[in-house]
Order: sequence, then structure tokens, then C-alpha cells
Amino acid sequence: MSRPAVHPVEPPPLIDGRNDVVPPRRVRMKDVQGMPGTSTGLALRLCQVIFSVISLTVMATTSDFPSVTAFRYLVAAVGLQSLWSLSLAMIDVYALCVKRSLRNPALITIYAIGDGITSTLTFAAACACAGITVLISNDLNRCDINHCKRFMSATAMAFIKWLNRLKGNYRRAEQGSPQLVKVT
Amino acid sequence: MSRPAVHPVEPPPLIDGRNDVVPPRRVRMKDVQGMPGTSTGLALRLCQVIFSVISLTVMATTSDFPSVTAFRYLVAAVGLQSLWSLSLAMIDVYALCVKRSLRNPALITIYAIGDGITSTLTFAAACACAGITVLISNDLNRCDINHCKRFMSATAMAFIKWLNRLKGNYRRAEQGSPQLVKVT
Repeated sequence: MSRPAVHPVEPPPLIDGRNDVVPPRRVRMKDVQGMPGTSTGLALRLCQVIFSVISLTVMATTSDFPSVTAFRYLVAAVGLQSLWSLSLAMIDVYALCVKRSLRNPALITIYAIGDGITSTLTFAAACACAGITVLISNDLNRCDINHCKRFMSATAMAFIKWLNRLKGNYRRAEQGSPQLVKVT
Repeated sequence: MSRPAVHPVEPPPLIDGRNDVVPPRRVRMKDVQGMPGTSTGLALRLCQVIFSVISLTVMATTSDFPSVTAFRYLVAAVGLQSLWSLSLAMIDVYALCVKRSLRNPALITIYAIGDGITSTLTFAAACACAGITVLISNDLNRCDINHCKRFMSATAMAFIKWLNRLKGNYRRAEQGSPQLVKVT
């Protein structure tokens, strides 16, 4: 029968009465809302998943998207983004359920690199699609034979997803960057 | 007759023999190559100016660029980028000539915000132009009636300018973020 693992807590160091014996200092990261393993972080992550999936669905259900390279690229980029955000959201849910902290520097570095790559890819794809959508609708006036509204919606969702990431970063910056707080 | 200003150095605090009088600590920023006011920073800045101006010139000398919104946007973005980079390069040259330090936190924040805005605008414009150029050349095969090579060159230069900024950021990150070093 499996049961939840119990993470043992170190016993407090023994003080033997002398003043010169100082217990060793332990270092842990400050609790910052919006970071992995917090409820705000999970909410932001779920917003990313929702917007990415809407963008992917709207673009992928358009009949003529495979004929344009930029639209195919958008589908690939938001597909990757949804998978990445979904897996991190699942890790966040797990961390919240078992009340374990995900705030360790190595993990946050991996998250930041992954977020940076997927976010840049999505932004680039959204810009390329926006350029083509504006070309079709404003410059060529060919909205009668193209699905301009669908292209615009998919692009807008990709941009909102990117802004959502920026908002997460801003929230983190506002509350201070990940800091090591010394706990005696 | 004007002459270069001499910046007076504070006299060292007088120690009057007692052990409990400690001179006040002064704080200055660490000297990091690639930051404003250093020769590497100036070189990176000049590369930005050169690539932006080439991109601007190539795109603006194409006869049909005003008919496409994304190309007009690229011209505006790299124009703004060249003005911004040129003014910062001139400030860097001045700082190097008079050997004054530009490494103060407020100035570096302004530089970082300005760089972030211009760089994001240039990247978005380059992505939009890349999307349209690929549409014209690969998807529609209309390079015979369009200046594909010029569009590609202008887009490539804008991307190189953006990578140049990334390189600058990486160099700064590699040598440590701006840190305050305590000088006794």
C-alpha cells in the first residue's frame, strides 16, 4: 500500500551552553506570489494554457492555414507553448496539493529559460501572422476570399498569451527578484 | 577660454588615533565590460547603429515599400532604433573622452527600459517583414515582380541588430549583473 512520503525535518542543533557555538545558518528562498508553486503562479500558467489552446484551435480549424508558412509556424509555436505551460501547470498543482515548495534556484532557472524560449517563439509567430493579416485585410483588401477574422483572433490570442507572460514577470519584479533569505 | 573641468576628489577622512572612529563607507558600481561608458559597450552600440542604418537604407530605397504596412513599420522601428543607439553612442564617446563613469543605477535603468522598448519594436517589425517576405518568395513565388532580396536583406539586418543586443545582455550577465561594490 503506498502512502505519502514524509519529508523529515532536521532536529534542531544541540546547544551545549557555550556562547561560541552558533547553529549553522540555513538559506531558503523568499515566498513571492507569481512564482512556480504559488496559487498566483498557477493562475497565470492556466491563463497561458487557455489562450494558447484558443489560438491553436482557431488557427488549426481554418481551412487554408497550411498554405502560408507563418500560419503553420504559429500553429507549431502555440502548440509547443500549450504543452510547456500545461506541464508546468500540472507540476504547480502537484506542488500546491502536497504543499511542497518549488522555489529552488536551479528549477527557477530552468523555468525561466523554457519560458523565455517558448515566449519568444510565440511572439515572433504572432508578429509574422499580424504582418500577413494586415497585408491581406488593409493593404490588399482580400478579406472576401480569406478568413481574416479567424487569422486576427488567433494572432490576438497569441499576443495576449505573450502579454500574460510579461504580466507575470512584472509581478515578480514588483515584489522583488528571487532573494535568498537567511533563516537562523 | 574653456578648459576641462576637474572633478575634485574628497580628502581622506582624518583618523584621530581612536579605534572607534571608522571612516564612512562609500559605494560605487563594479566596472563591467559591455555596460554604458566602457569601450566594449561603445563597440556594441556602434554595431547596433550600423546594422540599423543598413536595414533602414535598404528598405527605404525599395520603390514599393510604402504599399505594405509591415515594411513601413520596419522603416519606422529601425529609424527610431538608429536615433536611440546613435545618441547613446555619442554619450558613451563623451564619457570615454572625459573619463567619467556612466555606471549609476538610475541611468542604467533608463538605458535598459529604452533598449527594451526599441529592441522589442525592431524584433516585432523584423518578424512581420520575415513573414511577408517568406509569403512572397516561398508560398506565392512572386519574386519576379517584387524586390525579395532587398526585403530579405533589410529583415536580416534588423534580426542581426536584435541578436547584437542579446549578445550585449549575455556579456553583462556573464560578468555579473550591476553590483554595488563597497569601497572602504
